[in-house]
Amino acid sequence: MGKFRTREIENIIGYEFRNKELLFTALTHTSYANEHRKESYERLEFLGDSVIDLLVCTILYENYENLSEGTMAQIKSAVTSEDILYEIAKKLNIGKFLILGKGEKRSGGSEKKSILADVIESLIAAVYLDSKKNLYTIENLFSDIFKEYIEIFLSGKRIFDYKTKLQEITQEKFKQLPVYETTVMGNKFFTILKINGKIFSKAKGTSKKESEKLAAKTAYEKLKEDEKNGK
Amino acid sequence: MGKFRTREIENIIGYEFRNKELLFTALTHTSYANEHRKESYERLEFLGDSVIDLLVCTILYENYENLSEGTMAQIKSAVTSEDILYEIAKKLNIGKFLILGKGEKRSGGSEKKSILADVIESLIAAVYLDSKKNLYTIENLFSDIFKEYIEIFLSGKRIFDYKTKLQEITQEKFKQLPVYETTVMGNKFFTILKINGKIFSKAKGTSKKESEKLAAKTAYEKLKEDEKNGK
Repeated sequence: MGKFRTREIENIIGYEFRNKELLFTALTHTSYANEHRKESYERLEFLGDSVIDLLVCTILYENYENLSEGTMAQIKSAVTSEDILYEIAKKLNIGKFLILGKGEKRSGGSEKKSILADVIESLIAAVYLDSKKNLYTIENLFSDIFKEYIEIFLSGKRIFDYKTKLQEITQEKFKQLPVYETTVMGNKFFTILKINGKIFSKAKGTSKKESEKLAAKTAYEKLKEDEKNGK
Repeated sequence: MGKFRTREIENIIGYEFRNKELLFTALTHTSYANEHRKESYERLEFLGDSVIDLLVCTILYENYENLSEGTMAQIKSAVTSEDILYEIAKKLNIGKFLILGKGEKRSGGSEKKSILADVIESLIAAVYLDSKKNLYTIENLFSDIFKEYIEIFLSGKRIFDYKTKLQEITQEKFKQLPVYETTVMGNKFFTILKINGKIFSKAKGTSKKESEKLAAKTAYEKLKEDEKNGK
Protein backbone atom coordinates (compact mmCIF):
# COMPACT_ATOMS: atom_id res chain seq x y z
CA MET A 1 0.00 0.00 0.00
CA GLY A 2 1.56 3.27 -1.08
CA LYS A 3 1.96 6.41 0.98
CA PHE A 4 -0.88 8.06 -0.83
CA ARG A 5 -3.42 5.32 -0.02
CA THR A 6 -2.24 5.16 3.58
CA ARG A 7 -2.97 8.87 3.94
CA GLU A 8 -6.32 8.41 2.30
CA ILE A 9 -7.54 5.76 4.72
CA GLU A 10 -6.03 7.60 7.68
CA ASN A 11 -8.06 10.61 6.64
CA ILE A 12 -11.23 8.55 6.45
CA ILE A 13 -10.69 7.14 9.94
CA GLY A 14 -9.40 10.46 11.26
CA TYR A 15 -6.32 8.89 12.81
CA GLU A 16 -2.63 8.85 11.89
CA PHE A 17 -0.92 5.56 12.69
CA ARG A 18 2.49 5.52 14.37
CA ASN A 19 2.85 1.93 13.32
CA LYS A 20 1.71 1.69 9.69
CA GLU A 21 2.25 -2.09 9.76
CA LEU A 22 -0.74 -2.38 12.07
CA LEU A 23 -2.90 -0.57 9.56
CA PHE A 24 -1.75 -2.88 6.76
CA THR A 25 -2.42 -5.98 8.84
CA ALA A 26 -5.89 -4.69 9.67
CA LEU A 27 -6.63 -4.54 5.96
CA THR A 28 -5.00 -7.83 4.94
CA HIS A 29 -7.40 -10.65 4.16
CA THR A 30 -6.34 -14.29 4.74
CA SER A 31 -6.28 -14.90 0.99
CA TYR A 32 -3.50 -12.33 0.52
CA ALA A 33 -1.78 -13.31 3.77
CA ASN A 34 -1.55 -16.92 2.62
CA GLU A 35 -0.16 -15.99 -0.79
CA HIS A 36 2.49 -13.62 0.61
CA ARG A 37 3.24 -15.11 4.02
CA LYS A 38 1.93 -12.07 5.79
CA GLU A 39 -0.22 -11.79 8.89
CA SER A 40 -3.94 -11.50 8.18
CA TYR A 41 -6.43 -9.32 10.01
CA GLU A 42 -8.06 -12.25 11.83
CA ARG A 43 -6.43 -11.87 15.22
CA LEU A 44 -6.99 -8.11 15.13
CA GLU A 45 -10.60 -8.73 14.19
CA PHE A 46 -10.98 -10.94 17.28
CA LEU A 47 -9.61 -8.18 19.47
CA GLY A 48 -11.61 -5.46 17.74
CA ASP A 49 -14.86 -7.25 18.45
CA SER A 50 -14.37 -6.68 22.17
CA VAL A 51 -13.14 -3.10 21.71
CA ILE A 52 -16.38 -2.30 19.88
CA ASP A 53 -18.42 -4.11 22.54
CA LEU A 54 -16.86 -2.03 25.28
CA LEU A 55 -17.30 1.17 23.29
CA VAL A 56 -21.00 0.48 22.74
CA CYS A 57 -21.60 -0.67 26.33
CA THR A 58 -19.90 2.45 27.64
CA ILE A 59 -22.03 4.69 25.43
CA LEU A 60 -25.18 2.91 26.62
CA TYR A 61 -24.13 3.03 30.28
CA GLU A 62 -23.19 6.70 30.23
CA ASN A 63 -25.92 8.13 28.05
CA TYR A 64 -29.01 6.04 28.71
CA GLU A 65 -29.50 5.91 32.45
CA ASN A 66 -33.04 4.67 32.17
CA LEU A 67 -32.36 1.58 30.13
CA SER A 68 -32.37 -1.74 31.97
CA GLU A 69 -29.42 -4.05 31.47
CA GLY A 70 -31.70 -6.35 29.46
CA THR A 71 -32.54 -3.66 26.93
CA MET A 72 -28.93 -2.51 26.84
CA ALA A 73 -27.86 -6.07 26.04
CA GLN A 74 -30.34 -6.33 23.17
CA ILE A 75 -29.29 -3.02 21.69
CA LYS A 76 -25.62 -3.82 22.06
CA SER A 77 -26.06 -7.07 20.22
CA ALA A 78 -27.98 -5.33 17.42
CA VAL A 79 -25.56 -2.43 17.03
CA THR A 80 -22.49 -4.67 16.94
CA SER A 81 -24.01 -7.18 14.51
CA GLU A 82 -22.46 -8.04 11.17
CA ASP A 83 -25.25 -6.18 9.39
CA ILE A 84 -24.45 -2.90 11.07
CA LEU A 85 -20.65 -3.22 10.87
CA TYR A 86 -21.11 -3.87 7.18
CA GLU A 87 -23.20 -0.72 6.80
CA ILE A 88 -20.52 1.26 8.59
CA ALA A 89 -17.85 -0.16 6.29
CA LYS A 90 -19.92 0.85 3.26
CA LYS A 91 -20.40 4.36 4.62
CA LEU A 92 -16.68 4.77 5.21
CA ASN A 93 -15.97 3.29 1.79
CA ILE A 94 -13.43 0.84 3.20
CA GLY A 95 -13.79 -1.77 0.46
CA LYS A 96 -11.29 -0.27 -1.92
CA PHE A 97 -8.50 -0.42 0.66
CA LEU A 98 -8.76 -4.15 1.32
CA ILE A 99 -5.65 -6.18 0.59
CA LEU A 100 -6.98 -9.37 -1.02
CA GLY A 101 -5.49 -12.43 -2.65
CA LYS A 102 -5.98 -12.95 -6.37
CA GLY A 103 -8.89 -15.37 -6.13
CA GLU A 104 -10.72 -13.33 -3.55
CA LYS A 105 -10.26 -10.18 -5.58
CA ARG A 106 -11.74 -11.82 -8.64
CA SER A 107 -14.73 -13.16 -6.73
CA GLY A 108 -15.58 -9.69 -5.45
CA GLY A 109 -14.15 -9.96 -1.94
CA SER A 110 -14.03 -6.21 -1.49
CA GLU A 111 -17.83 -6.17 -1.60
CA LYS A 112 -18.45 -9.15 0.69
CA LYS A 113 -20.49 -8.45 3.76
CA SER A 114 -18.53 -10.65 6.16
CA ILE A 115 -15.15 -9.32 5.03
CA LEU A 116 -16.22 -5.69 5.26
CA ALA A 117 -17.73 -6.20 8.71
CA ASP A 118 -14.56 -7.96 9.87
CA VAL A 119 -12.39 -5.11 8.70
CA ILE A 120 -14.28 -2.55 10.75
CA GLU A 121 -13.36 -4.68 13.77
CA SER A 122 -9.73 -5.10 12.78
CA LEU A 123 -9.33 -1.39 12.01
CA ILE A 124 -10.73 -0.38 15.39
CA ALA A 125 -8.42 -2.88 17.09
CA ALA A 126 -5.49 -1.39 15.18
CA VAL A 127 -6.33 2.09 16.44
CA TYR A 128 -6.77 0.71 19.96
CA LEU A 129 -3.29 -0.85 19.94
CA ASP A 130 -1.60 2.01 18.10
CA SER A 131 -3.01 4.58 20.54
CA LYS A 132 -1.69 2.51 23.44
CA LYS A 133 -5.17 1.32 24.41
CA ASN A 134 -6.51 4.82 24.76
CA LEU A 135 -10.29 4.49 24.92
CA TYR A 136 -10.80 8.23 24.57
CA THR A 137 -9.23 8.05 21.13
CA ILE A 138 -11.63 5.24 20.25
CA GLU A 139 -14.57 7.23 21.58
CA ASN A 140 -13.58 10.39 19.73
CA LEU A 141 -13.31 8.56 16.45
CA PHE A 142 -16.16 6.08 16.59
CA SER A 143 -18.76 7.06 19.17
CA ASP A 144 -20.92 9.13 16.86
CA ILE A 145 -21.41 6.44 14.28
CA PHE A 146 -22.49 3.87 16.87
CA LYS A 147 -24.69 6.41 18.69
CA GLU A 148 -26.56 6.95 15.47
CA TYR A 149 -27.41 3.24 15.24
CA ILE A 150 -28.34 3.05 18.93
CA GLU A 151 -30.88 5.78 18.28
CA ILE A 152 -32.29 3.97 15.26
CA PHE A 153 -32.84 0.76 17.24
CA LEU A 154 -34.23 2.61 20.27
CA SER A 155 -36.72 4.44 18.08
CA GLY A 156 -38.02 1.06 16.89
CA LYS A 157 -37.24 1.88 13.27
CA ARG A 158 -35.36 -1.41 13.08
CA ILE A 159 -35.82 -4.67 14.94
CA PHE A 160 -32.76 -5.75 16.84
CA ASP A 161 -32.65 -9.44 17.26
CA TYR A 162 -35.10 -11.85 15.75
CA LYS A 163 -33.99 -14.81 17.86
CA THR A 164 -34.55 -12.94 21.12
CA LYS A 165 -37.74 -11.34 19.87
CA LEU A 166 -39.13 -14.69 18.80
CA GLN A 167 -38.16 -16.28 22.10
CA GLU A 168 -40.02 -13.55 24.01
CA ILE A 169 -43.16 -14.09 21.99
CA THR A 170 -43.17 -17.89 22.11
CA GLN A 171 -42.40 -17.85 25.82
CA GLU A 172 -45.39 -15.65 26.45
CA LYS A 173 -47.73 -17.24 23.96
CA PHE A 174 -46.87 -20.92 24.21
CA LYS A 175 -44.73 -21.17 27.37
CA GLN A 176 -42.19 -22.75 25.05
CA LEU A 177 -38.94 -21.72 23.48
CA PRO A 178 -38.42 -22.20 19.77
CA VAL A 179 -36.36 -25.28 18.90
CA TYR A 180 -33.70 -24.95 16.19
CA GLU A 181 -32.78 -28.15 14.40
CA THR A 182 -29.74 -27.37 12.33
CA THR A 183 -27.92 -29.84 10.12
CA VAL A 184 -24.72 -29.41 8.15
CA MET A 185 -24.23 -30.46 4.56
CA GLY A 186 -20.85 -29.56 3.13
CA ASN A 187 -20.43 -25.94 4.07
CA LYS A 188 -24.16 -25.18 4.17
CA PHE A 189 -26.33 -25.11 7.26
CA PHE A 190 -30.03 -26.00 7.22
CA THR A 191 -32.37 -25.05 10.03
CA ILE A 192 -35.83 -26.30 10.86
CA LEU A 193 -37.51 -24.17 13.48
CA LYS A 194 -40.19 -25.83 15.60
CA ILE A 195 -42.52 -24.37 18.17
CA ASN A 196 -44.59 -26.77 20.21
CA GLY A 197 -43.30 -29.59 18.04
CA LYS A 198 -44.71 -27.97 14.90
CA ILE A 199 -42.50 -26.85 12.06
CA PHE A 200 -42.72 -23.07 11.82
CA SER A 201 -40.04 -22.16 9.36
CA LYS A 202 -37.02 -23.42 7.44
CA ALA A 203 -33.91 -21.63 6.35
CA LYS A 204 -30.39 -22.17 5.10
CA GLY A 205 -27.19 -20.20 5.45
CA THR A 206 -23.43 -20.27 5.37
CA SER A 207 -23.18 -20.47 9.16
CA LYS A 208 -25.28 -21.93 11.95
CA LYS A 209 -25.90 -18.40 13.21
CA GLU A 210 -27.05 -17.06 9.88
CA SER A 211 -29.30 -20.00 9.15
CA GLU A 212 -30.97 -19.87 12.57
CA LYS A 213 -31.37 -16.10 12.40
CA LEU A 214 -33.14 -16.35 9.07
CA ALA A 215 -35.42 -19.08 10.40
CA ALA A 216 -36.23 -16.90 13.41
CA LYS A 217 -37.01 -13.93 11.17
CA THR A 218 -39.45 -15.94 9.06
CA ALA A 219 -41.12 -17.45 12.11
CA TYR A 220 -41.38 -14.04 13.75
CA GLU A 221 -43.01 -12.54 10.70
CA LYS A 222 -45.40 -15.48 10.47
CA LEU A 223 -46.46 -15.05 14.08
CA LYS A 224 -46.99 -11.33 13.57
CA GLU A 225 -49.05 -12.04 10.50
CA ASP A 226 -51.15 -14.56 12.47
CA GLU A 227 -51.68 -11.97 15.19
CA LYS A 228 -52.88 -9.45 12.64
CA ASN A 229 -55.33 -12.02 11.32
CA GLY A 230 -56.56 -12.63 14.83
CA LYS A 231 -55.22 -16.18 15.16
CA MET B 1 -21.02 0.38 54.48
CA GLY B 2 -18.63 1.82 57.05
CA LYS B 3 -15.22 3.33 56.43
CA PHE B 4 -13.57 0.25 57.78
CA ARG B 5 -15.25 -2.17 55.39
CA THR B 6 -14.65 0.17 52.48
CA ARG B 7 -10.92 0.09 53.24
CA GLU B 8 -11.04 -3.65 53.56
CA ILE B 9 -12.51 -4.27 50.13
CA GLU B 10 -10.32 -1.58 48.56
CA ASN B 11 -7.33 -3.46 49.98
CA ILE B 12 -8.55 -6.72 48.50
CA ILE B 13 -8.96 -5.18 45.06
CA GLY B 14 -5.82 -3.09 45.45
CA TYR B 15 -7.55 0.10 44.37
CA GLU B 16 -8.75 3.19 46.24
CA PHE B 17 -11.95 4.64 44.86
CA ARG B 18 -12.33 8.39 44.32
CA ASN B 19 -16.06 7.89 44.12
CA LYS B 20 -17.06 5.54 46.94
CA GLU B 21 -20.66 5.57 45.70
CA LEU B 22 -19.56 3.57 42.67
CA LEU B 23 -18.10 0.91 44.92
CA PHE B 24 -21.33 0.71 46.96
CA THR B 25 -23.43 0.42 43.82
CA ALA B 26 -21.16 -2.34 42.53
CA LEU B 27 -21.92 -4.32 45.68
CA THR B 28 -25.65 -3.59 45.90
CA HIS B 29 -27.94 -6.46 44.93
CA THR B 30 -31.38 -5.76 43.43
CA SER B 31 -33.05 -7.08 46.59
CA TYR B 32 -31.46 -4.33 48.70
CA ALA B 33 -31.83 -1.73 45.97
CA ASN B 34 -35.58 -2.38 45.79
CA GLU B 35 -36.03 -2.16 49.55
CA HIS B 36 -34.06 1.09 49.89
CA ARG B 37 -34.65 2.79 46.57
CA LYS B 38 -31.00 2.58 45.64
CA GLU B 39 -29.35 1.71 42.39
CA SER B 40 -28.38 -1.96 42.04
CA TYR B 41 -25.23 -3.34 40.44
CA GLU B 42 -27.04 -4.58 37.35
CA ARG B 43 -26.10 -1.82 34.93
CA LEU B 44 -22.50 -1.91 36.14
CA GLU B 45 -22.49 -5.66 35.73
CA PHE B 46 -23.57 -5.21 32.10
CA LEU B 47 -20.70 -2.81 31.51
CA GLY B 48 -18.20 -4.94 33.43
CA ASP B 49 -18.88 -7.92 31.23
CA SER B 50 -17.40 -6.09 28.26
CA VAL B 51 -14.51 -4.64 30.28
CA ILE B 52 -13.51 -8.19 31.24
CA ASP B 53 -13.94 -9.38 27.66
CA LEU B 54 -11.60 -6.70 26.39
CA LEU B 55 -9.09 -7.39 29.16
CA VAL B 56 -9.00 -11.10 28.35
CA CYS B 57 -8.90 -10.55 24.57
CA THR B 58 -6.03 -8.10 24.99
CA ILE B 59 -4.08 -10.57 27.13
CA LEU B 60 -4.66 -13.29 24.53
CA TYR B 61 -3.73 -11.04 21.63
CA GLU B 62 -0.57 -9.70 23.21
CA ASN B 63 0.78 -12.82 24.89
CA TYR B 64 -0.23 -15.72 22.67
CA GLU B 65 0.86 -14.88 19.15
CA ASN B 66 0.47 -18.42 17.94
CA LEU B 67 -3.16 -18.90 18.88
CA SER B 68 -5.69 -18.71 16.07
CA GLU B 69 -8.70 -16.46 16.55
CA GLY B 70 -10.86 -19.57 16.89
CA THR B 71 -8.90 -20.89 19.85
CA MET B 72 -8.72 -17.42 21.38
CA ALA B 73 -12.50 -17.17 21.15
CA GLN B 74 -13.00 -20.51 22.91
CA ILE B 75 -10.59 -19.62 25.69
CA LYS B 76 -12.09 -16.19 26.12
CA SER B 77 -15.53 -17.66 26.50
CA ALA B 78 -14.27 -20.19 29.07
CA VAL B 79 -12.27 -17.71 31.11
CA THR B 80 -15.10 -15.19 31.29
CA SER B 81 -17.76 -17.78 32.15
CA GLU B 82 -19.89 -17.62 35.28
CA ASP B 83 -18.00 -20.59 36.72
CA ILE B 84 -14.66 -18.82 36.59
CA LEU B 85 -15.93 -15.43 37.73
CA TYR B 86 -17.49 -17.22 40.68
CA GLU B 87 -14.19 -18.87 41.53
CA ILE B 88 -12.46 -15.50 41.39
CA ALA B 89 -15.08 -14.02 43.71
CA LYS B 90 -14.52 -16.87 46.16
CA LYS B 91 -10.75 -16.39 46.05
CA LEU B 92 -11.10 -12.68 46.73
CA ASN B 93 -13.62 -13.41 49.45
CA ILE B 94 -16.11 -10.89 48.06
CA GLY B 95 -19.24 -12.51 49.50
CA LYS B 96 -19.13 -10.84 52.87
CA PHE B 97 -19.17 -7.36 51.31
CA LEU B 98 -22.38 -7.87 49.33
CA ILE B 99 -25.21 -5.51 50.17
CA LEU B 100 -28.32 -7.72 50.11
CA GLY B 101 -32.00 -7.30 50.94
CA LYS B 102 -33.41 -9.13 53.93
CA GLY B 103 -34.90 -12.08 52.05
CA GLU B 104 -31.84 -12.60 49.92
CA LYS B 105 -29.59 -12.46 52.97
CA ARG B 106 -31.65 -15.13 54.69
CA SER B 107 -31.62 -17.39 51.66
CA GLY B 108 -27.83 -17.30 51.49
CA GLY B 109 -27.43 -14.77 48.68
CA SER B 110 -23.85 -14.01 49.62
CA GLU B 111 -22.93 -17.56 48.63
CA LYS B 112 -24.89 -17.71 45.38
CA LYS B 113 -22.87 -18.45 42.29
CA SER B 114 -24.69 -16.09 39.96
CA ILE B 115 -24.59 -13.18 42.39
CA LEU B 116 -20.90 -13.59 43.15
CA ALA B 117 -20.02 -13.87 39.46
CA ASP B 118 -22.07 -10.76 38.71
CA VAL B 119 -20.29 -8.77 41.39
CA ILE B 120 -16.87 -9.47 39.89
CA GLU B 121 -18.20 -7.84 36.74
CA SER B 122 -19.73 -4.88 38.51
CA LEU B 123 -16.61 -4.28 40.60
CA ILE B 124 -14.37 -4.28 37.55
CA ALA B 125 -16.76 -1.86 35.83
CA ALA B 126 -16.62 0.39 38.89
CA VAL B 127 -12.81 0.49 38.75
CA TYR B 128 -12.99 1.15 35.00
CA LEU B 129 -15.27 4.15 35.47
CA ASP B 130 -13.55 5.46 38.60
CA SER B 131 -10.13 5.32 36.93
CA LYS B 132 -11.53 7.29 33.98
CA LYS B 133 -11.51 4.27 31.70
CA ASN B 134 -7.84 3.58 32.22
CA LEU B 135 -7.20 0.10 30.88
CA TYR B 136 -3.72 -0.01 32.36
CA THR B 137 -5.25 0.22 35.82
CA ILE B 138 -7.53 -2.69 34.94
CA GLU B 139 -4.60 -4.66 33.59
CA ASN B 140 -2.44 -4.00 36.63
CA LEU B 141 -5.15 -5.13 38.99
CA PHE B 142 -6.75 -8.05 37.20
CA SER B 143 -4.44 -9.42 34.49
CA ASP B 144 -2.69 -11.98 36.65
CA ILE B 145 -5.80 -13.68 37.87
CA PHE B 146 -7.20 -14.10 34.34
CA LYS B 147 -3.80 -15.18 32.97
CA GLU B 148 -3.77 -17.98 35.50
CA TYR B 149 -7.07 -19.31 34.15
CA ILE B 150 -5.97 -18.91 30.54
CA GLU B 151 -3.01 -21.14 31.34
CA ILE B 152 -5.24 -23.74 33.00
CA PHE B 153 -7.50 -23.98 29.96
CA LEU B 154 -4.59 -23.96 27.52
CA SER B 155 -2.92 -26.79 29.39
CA GLY B 156 -6.09 -28.87 28.90
CA LYS B 157 -6.54 -29.29 32.65
CA ARG B 158 -10.10 -28.05 32.22
CA ILE B 159 -12.52 -28.25 29.31
CA PHE B 160 -13.68 -24.91 28.09
CA ASP B 161 -17.06 -25.12 26.57
CA TYR B 162 -19.22 -28.21 26.51
CA LYS B 163 -21.68 -26.86 23.95
CA THR B 164 -18.93 -26.14 21.43
CA LYS B 165 -17.09 -29.35 22.24
CA LEU B 166 -20.25 -31.41 21.79
CA GLN B 167 -21.06 -29.66 18.55
CA GLU B 168 -17.60 -30.47 17.18
CA ILE B 169 -18.00 -34.13 18.03
CA THR B 170 -21.53 -34.59 16.72
CA GLN B 171 -20.69 -32.69 13.56
CA GLU B 172 -17.81 -35.07 12.88
CA LYS B 173 -19.47 -38.24 14.05
CA PHE B 174 -23.07 -37.80 12.90
CA LYS B 175 -22.92 -34.82 10.48
CA GLN B 176 -25.55 -33.34 12.77
CA LEU B 177 -25.67 -30.63 15.37
CA PRO B 178 -27.22 -31.37 18.74
CA VAL B 179 -30.78 -30.08 19.11
CA TYR B 180 -31.73 -28.36 22.37
CA GLU B 181 -35.41 -28.44 23.25
CA THR B 182 -35.86 -26.13 26.18
CA THR B 183 -39.13 -25.40 27.90
CA VAL B 184 -39.92 -22.95 30.67
CA MET B 185 -41.97 -23.72 33.73
CA GLY B 186 -42.21 -20.90 36.20
CA ASN B 187 -38.63 -19.78 36.59
CA LYS B 188 -37.10 -23.16 35.77
CA PHE B 189 -35.77 -24.23 32.41
CA PHE B 190 -35.85 -27.85 31.19
CA THR B 191 -33.73 -29.05 28.32
CA ILE B 192 -33.95 -32.21 26.27
CA LEU B 193 -30.91 -32.72 24.09
CA LYS B 194 -31.36 -34.76 20.94
CA ILE B 195 -28.83 -35.99 18.46
CA ASN B 196 -30.10 -37.60 15.29
CA GLY B 197 -33.60 -37.41 16.71
CA LYS B 198 -32.62 -39.53 19.73
CA ILE B 199 -32.77 -38.17 23.26
CA PHE B 200 -29.22 -38.00 24.59
CA SER B 201 -29.57 -36.14 27.84
CA LYS B 202 -31.90 -34.08 29.97
CA ALA B 203 -31.16 -31.23 32.35
CA LYS B 204 -32.74 -28.38 34.24
CA GLY B 205 -31.45 -25.01 35.35
CA THR B 206 -32.36 -21.50 36.40
CA SER B 207 -31.57 -20.12 32.95
CA LYS B 208 -31.75 -21.38 29.40
CA LYS B 209 -27.98 -21.16 29.20
CA GLU B 210 -27.37 -23.13 32.36
CA SER B 211 -29.85 -25.83 31.51
CA GLU B 212 -28.48 -26.29 27.98
CA LYS B 213 -24.89 -26.28 29.21
CA LEU B 214 -25.63 -29.04 31.71
CA ALA B 215 -27.39 -31.09 29.05
CA ALA B 216 -24.37 -30.63 26.78
CA LYS B 217 -21.99 -31.71 29.54
CA THR B 218 -23.92 -34.91 30.21
CA ALA B 219 -24.21 -35.72 26.51
CA TYR B 220 -20.51 -35.04 26.02
CA GLU B 221 -19.56 -37.35 28.85
CA LYS B 222 -21.89 -40.01 27.52
CA LEU B 223 -20.30 -39.84 24.06
CA LYS B 224 -16.84 -40.04 25.58
CA GLU B 225 -17.89 -43.07 27.63
CA ASP B 226 -19.29 -44.71 24.47
CA GLU B 227 -16.02 -44.06 22.69
CA LYS B 228 -14.08 -45.71 25.48
CA ASN B 229 -16.33 -48.72 25.24
CA GLY B 230 -15.70 -48.86 21.53
CA LYS B 231 -19.23 -47.92 20.43
